[in-house]
This record gives sequence, C-alpha cells and structure tokens, in this order.
Amino acid sequence: MSFPEPLTRLVEELQRLPGLGPKSAQRLAFHILKAPREQADRLAAAIRDVKERVTHCSVCNNITDTDPCEFCRSTDRDQHVICVVEEPQNVAGIERIGEFKGVYHVLMGAISPLQGIGPDQLKIKGLLTRIAEGTISEVILATNPNVEGETTALYLARLLKPLGVKVTRIAVGVPVGSDLEYADQWTMHKALEGRREV
Amino acid sequence: MSFPEPLTRLVEELQRLPGLGPKSAQRLAFHILKAPREQADRLAAAIRDVKERVTHCSVCNNITDTDPCEFCRSTDRDQHVICVVEEPQNVAGIERIGEFKGVYHVLMGAISPLQGIGPDQLKIKGLLTRIAEGTISEVILATNPNVEGETTALYLARLLKPLGVKVTRIAVGVPVGSDLEYADQWTMHKALEGRREV
Repeated sequence: MSFPEPLTRLVEELQRLPGLGPKSAQRLAFHILKAPREQADRLAAAIRDVKERVTHCSVCNNITDTDPCEFCRSTDRDQHVICVVEEPQNVAGIERIGEFKGVYHVLMGAISPLQGIGPDQLKIKGLLTRIAEGTISEVILATNPNVEGETTALYLARLLKPLGVKVTRIAVGVPVGSDLEYADQWTMHKALEGRREV
Repeated sequence: MSFPEPLTRLVEELQRLPGLGPKSAQRLAFHILKAPREQADRLAAAIRDVKERVTHCSVCNNITDTDPCEFCRSTDRDQHVICVVEEPQNVAGIERIGEFKGVYHVLMGAISPLQGIGPDQLKIKGLLTRIAEGTISEVILATNPNVEGETTALYLARLLKPLGVKVTRIAVGVPVGSDLEYADQWTMHKALEGRREV
C-alpha cells in the first residue's frame, strides 16, 4: 500500500542513475507525473534517441551522430594535432575553452591495473594507425591528472615517441587527484598552455 | 562543436527536472548513453507509463492505477477516518510509519494568496461529499506545518466543524531526535503552545 505500480517502477529506474538516492528519485518521479504530457514524452524520446542515434566516430572514438564526427571531417580544425583524452565528456571540457583547434582521440578509458584495465582494452590501435599515416605533427596527452591517467600518458609517450611524432603532456595546473570533467575553464586553459614535451 | 544533437537534447530535457543543474544533467546523460540498451528502454518506458497509467482516485484524489484507489476500496482500512493531506507524496510519508489505518483525502495543494491559490482551486468539494454521507467519524488535518498549510487547516476546520464531524490537527513541535538549540522560533512557539500535561 503505497505508490501505484507504474510510479514505483519509475522511482526504481531513476534510482539506477548515478547520484540519485530514494528521495531524489521520488521527487523526480512525482515531478514527471505532474509535468505536461509533452514534456514527459520528450524526455522519454530523448532517452531512446540518445541510445539509437549516438555512436562512436570510427576515426577518433568520440561520440557522434555522424561518422566521421564533426571534428574529424572539419576543414576548420587542424588535422595534424591530436589531443588524446580518456572519455568523450573530456572533449566537451576542452571545447568549452574554445582555444584548441586540433582534433581528438578518445581512448575510452585509462590503464588501471586495479580494475584490470590494460592497454589492450583501450582504443590505442586507431591512434597508431592515424600516426602511421605520417601527417600528425603533435600528440597532446590530455588524460586525467590522476594515477590511471598519468600511467596511461607515460605508456603512450613511450609508445609514440619512437614513431618520430612530437608528444606533449598537458601542464600541471589541473589539480592532482581531480577529474578533467570538473576542471574549470581557467585551469583547463593553463593546463593546455603549459604543455611540455615528454 | 560539442555534443551530438541527441545528447544535447537529452541534457536539455534532464535539466528541466527539479534539482538538476547542467553538470548533473550532463553526468546523467552520459550515464544513460553508456548504460545497457535495456536499462535506457526501461527508463523511457517507465516515464511514458507513469503518464499513461497513473490517474487520480475519483474519491480521494490520491494517485492510483485503479479507480477507486487501493485505500478507498480496502476493507482492511478504517473508512470512517479521513486524513487530509496536500499532495499525493504526503500519503507515502504517512504510510511509511505503518500506523495510520484510515483513508486519505488529497487536496492537490494548499491555500496560498501569494500564488493566487484559493479554496476553490483545491479538491474540497469531494471531501464535503464524503462527510455528507454521514459515516465519517474523524477528519485529521495533516497539511504542511507552514503558512499555507496552517491557513488551509484553519479554513477546513471552520468549514467542517459545523457539519458535526470531529476535526483534529497533527501536532506541530520540535522533531524527534533534534536539538532544541537549532529549533526555529516559530517551531519553538508551536511546541510550547501545544504542550501537554505528562
């Protein structure tokens, strides 16, 4: 004797989302229940759409609804400079400062022995293929400034430098132990500006 | 140049929900993007379902997927005691303690001159109809202990008492487990005013 079954189920599904406890999930469910029908329909459609229409770019692995993604097929971007990041959301963080004019490569993770993630689970092969084409002048390693990210950067630096490509690492400036996703614009700016060859 | 359009739209739709800022909406959107297809489908279906299948009980206005609701058609509940609340979620709050065995009446709001909500906008007529049937022994006013809720309780008390029905108001005072030092003046005033001999 409490909520109607469809409402209970919505609360349950909302609780599966990160950072939503029982109280927040209940508040959201009641909001959706009260909201205009069109708003709920739009939200439901957006959830389905994002699963149906968003895929990964076959060149850089970034999320996209076209293939190649808008960065990889852009003539306005410097296709000779690749910024390597761990996750697609890191691309948004770097784009927000509006300064970087190159392209990206998304590894889809970082080396983490603790979580059993080795280099083989990352999208490194595609990066090597791009560099092998001989037109890349610089690879900027913009993995997270934490243990996994630094390990990944070190691994990539050792792997890529013998190929004769300039390899740089974003500068100290992004606070150690944090996540790129939450870096403020200025920190991100300093980090890009202060990048050094490794 | 940032997110693919379907992802941007999902972030926008999520931001319409209460308590979700741009960062949380983005985090949730990325989680949904990464989640298994079935989980996203279940969430989208739950959102549509809650709008399609949940309605209001024609007797008490509580949310329900059957009409009358499970409370109003239950033979295990005391149909002679009505607990009056502002919103459907208040029913869940009272049910959680598992002590109240009567039924409910949901007003769908509270009197608020500031927001232009008068008694006419509340579901009071149905309550009067139920009392007019002559089988109600007590009406418990469980509206919120704030200005709007108190105004509504006072209005209902004046309206219902002449009908010969017993009208009670839930106790307002210092909450269990709290520290008197942090009680606000109004709560303290109500706690003193409502003191009982022990």
